[in-house]
Amino acid sequence: MTEASLKKIDGGICASKGFKASGTYCGIKKPANDDPTIKHKNDICMYVSDVVCNAAAVYTQNKVKGAPILVTKANLEKSGNKAIAVMANSKNANTCNADGVEKANRMCELVANELNIPQEQVVVASTGVIGQVLPIEPIEKAVPVLVKELDYGKNEDAATAIMTTDTVKKEYAVEFKIGDAVCHIGGMAKGSGMIHPNMATTLNFITTDCAISAELLQKALSEIVKVTYNCLSIDGDTSTNDMVCLMANGLAGNNEITKENEDFEIFKTALYEVMASLTRMLAKDGEGASKLLECICTGAPDKDTAITIAKSVVCSSLFKAAMFGEDANWGRVLCAIGYADADFDINKVDVDLRSEKGTVAVCRNGAGVEFSEEKAATVLSSDEIYIDINLNQGNENATAWGCDLTYDYVKINGDYRT
Amino acid sequence: MTEASLKKIDGGICASKGFKASGTYCGIKKPANDDPTIKHKNDICMYVSDVVCNAAAVYTQNKVKGAPILVTKANLEKSGNKAIAVMANSKNANTCNADGVEKANRMCELVANELNIPQEQVVVASTGVIGQVLPIEPIEKAVPVLVKELDYGKNEDAATAIMTTDTVKKEYAVEFKIGDAVCHIGGMAKGSGMIHPNMATTLNFITTDCAISAELLQKALSEIVKVTYNCLSIDGDTSTNDMVCLMANGLAGNNEITKENEDFEIFKTALYEVMASLTRMLAKDGEGASKLLECICTGAPDKDTAITIAKSVVCSSLFKAAMFGEDANWGRVLCAIGYADADFDINKVDVDLRSEKGTVAVCRNGAGVEFSEEKAATVLSSDEIYIDINLNQGNENATAWGCDLTYDYVKINGDYRT
Repeated sequence: MTEASLKKIDGGICASKGFKASGTYCGIKKPANDDPTIKHKNDICMYVSDVVCNAAAVYTQNKVKGAPILVTKANLEKSGNKAIAVMANSKNANTCNADGVEKANRMCELVANELNIPQEQVVVASTGVIGQVLPIEPIEKAVPVLVKELDYGKNEDAATAIMTTDTVKKEYAVEFKIGDAVCHIGGMAKGSGMIHPNMATTLNFITTDCAISAELLQKALSEIVKVTYNCLSIDGDTSTNDMVCLMANGLAGNNEITKENEDFEIFKTALYEVMASLTRMLAKDGEGASKLLECICTGAPDKDTAITIAKSVVCSSLFKAAMFGEDANWGRVLCAIGYADADFDINKVDVDLRSEKGTVAVCRNGAGVEFSEEKAATVLSSDEIYIDINLNQGNENATAWGCDLTYDYVKINGDYRT
Repeated sequence: MTEASLKKIDGGICASKGFKASGTYCGIKKPANDDPTIKHKNDICMYVSDVVCNAAAVYTQNKVKGAPILVTKANLEKSGNKAIAVMANSKNANTCNADGVEKANRMCELVANELNIPQEQVVVASTGVIGQVLPIEPIEKAVPVLVKELDYGKNEDAATAIMTTDTVKKEYAVEFKIGDAVCHIGGMAKGSGMIHPNMATTLNFITTDCAISAELLQKALSEIVKVTYNCLSIDGDTSTNDMVCLMANGLAGNNEITKENEDFEIFKTALYEVMASLTRMLAKDGEGASKLLECICTGAPDKDTAITIAKSVVCSSLFKAAMFGEDANWGRVLCAIGYADADFDINKVDVDLRSEKGTVAVCRNGAGVEFSEEKAATVLSSDEIYIDINLNQGNENATAWGCDLTYDYVKINGDYRT
């Protein structure tokens, strides 16, 4: 499949056939008008497939794991990677609480009872402050409301309910064909700070109506998370509650993908498109961010080297602050390339800074070249900055996403709990 | 030796017998009154021992290495770790320049000619902006001035000349006895941003009049850098120009230390005192910092685990921002412990937040405990915050140093080059 045959569509997680969603306000968040940092009032959401799905998931590698992570993992193991319903809340991460697992299980039980489905086919997720006891009463009251409100067009109600310091909801969906069957993949994501994924990230929920075995669903997810969410960093902090959950209900009617054939490649291309687009949205809405940074490392001897170098640059606090200041301080790019944990020859490296306003070559063969500061200032005045690194020592490449470091990041995180 | 028998003294690098220093303004920096970010006018300094020294050094592990690093390393290899003189400039790192090595060698040549010593016994260092061509003419003019001005009491002239965004000079010295001989170790350091040492850090110059073999001098330095400078992070960015240089001229008259005996332990205790004190000063004067953070990890199964965990906490942007906001967001401490690359049981971990204003227990056995927000706010209003982590699974411990993340860090680094 060429990328051109992918069609971007609306609908987020409801773009896939047979997925209903809902969102509501239950009171875990303060009411929106009491807290100017909260952009949307919903604080809990649900989505449900009309039929049982194959499910795949990746989780945070942080040793401190949120209770919902532990419970979801156990559920999917018990159900043999089958799932029907997902419930997620924001503002409270239900992490580092003595009664966390009990509460997360209770959330699953509530959903299972209301929908009359097995408890182990429920996925649960929480995001927000770590170490505050999760109030269960508001959730008990919310579950019947959420179930009653479920609808095929309510993806936005769900996408806004998982927002914490996010300033915009993040949804993306595509349509593509496998044989004659029209398939869809749709996703939503939250995340703005504490983002430095390691094998998983933030909360990302993806649905598809494509028929695909649980095993290949997991394989596709694990492969693509490596080059999308795992190449994203807002602040270097790997969250305790990172999870990507991908559910496939098969309602598109294609022949089930059970082998690593051409159909599998088509599915992965579509999945990459959704996950990379959500990754980019997460980066652009990083806490306090004024600019998206996209670092594209080419000419690498191997994929891991390309990933490591691209990530190192978007993680550099100094470079991020320079981008905020629109200062073409490319020495900080070289510095970050230099401390990346990879094996390569620094003396072959070329660096350009680029935006829709132009390109400035700043470094050739590891050394500075003269450039117009005026032109650089123009290039960097854009709100999407590309850092092109050519290692000139191979054919592999990778992209990493991040954002600038601003006063607002400090402000947001100087007092997040209140 | 007990630590009590160490006597803190004045004099910085000139506290050791037989070391003269000088500093001057040569014009690499803009004149101080043209640039409010520059606190001191000197931009180049020198120090010289009356007799040839054994020299030890550790250097940045960044693959991008400043030209002075390459030249100093080559010199010490050539001289068999002997050195007499050190020259260092600020404001320009002489890094990523096509003619960098040539210029760094020229700096050594100038010093060697003026002092009539072998060129390979000169150590050279530069700190400042990466990737700007180093003007050599101001340095050519400065060298005779520096040599003329050399004096036993001019440690401050040197210590201020290496400052970049530093707001205070950093000097520390101790006196101690080996046998009947009164020995000294004195040091100066610079560094405020781009500090996340890996085997070396920033620019740190240490002198001693203790007689000790070059081999043991290097061994002591490498051991102690691991638990001092390498446990420091301001912003996660490992500089291209990090170096610690330690020179011993033997003028104290003690029997030369050539074995790992009790004298060697005394020397290491004194060296630790100087290096740990300078590390603490560097952390406290981190770019934009309003608070020193000192994370003490105890009860660890091994030293490396203790170091990794303590560093992880002081590196967390989110925790650093919370400390700026004086917000007892201990969940971020747990999160940072959790993503530390070490093997331990998170469910045994206790955390306290402490300052001279009191202590608050915030976490026991990996879960939150109730505490008074009011008391926590009082504790965190101090400008030196201690994070006490007890892993409760062994007897090793380590300390890491850092600072809070503030608006001023962003401001300083949003436009550093101009």
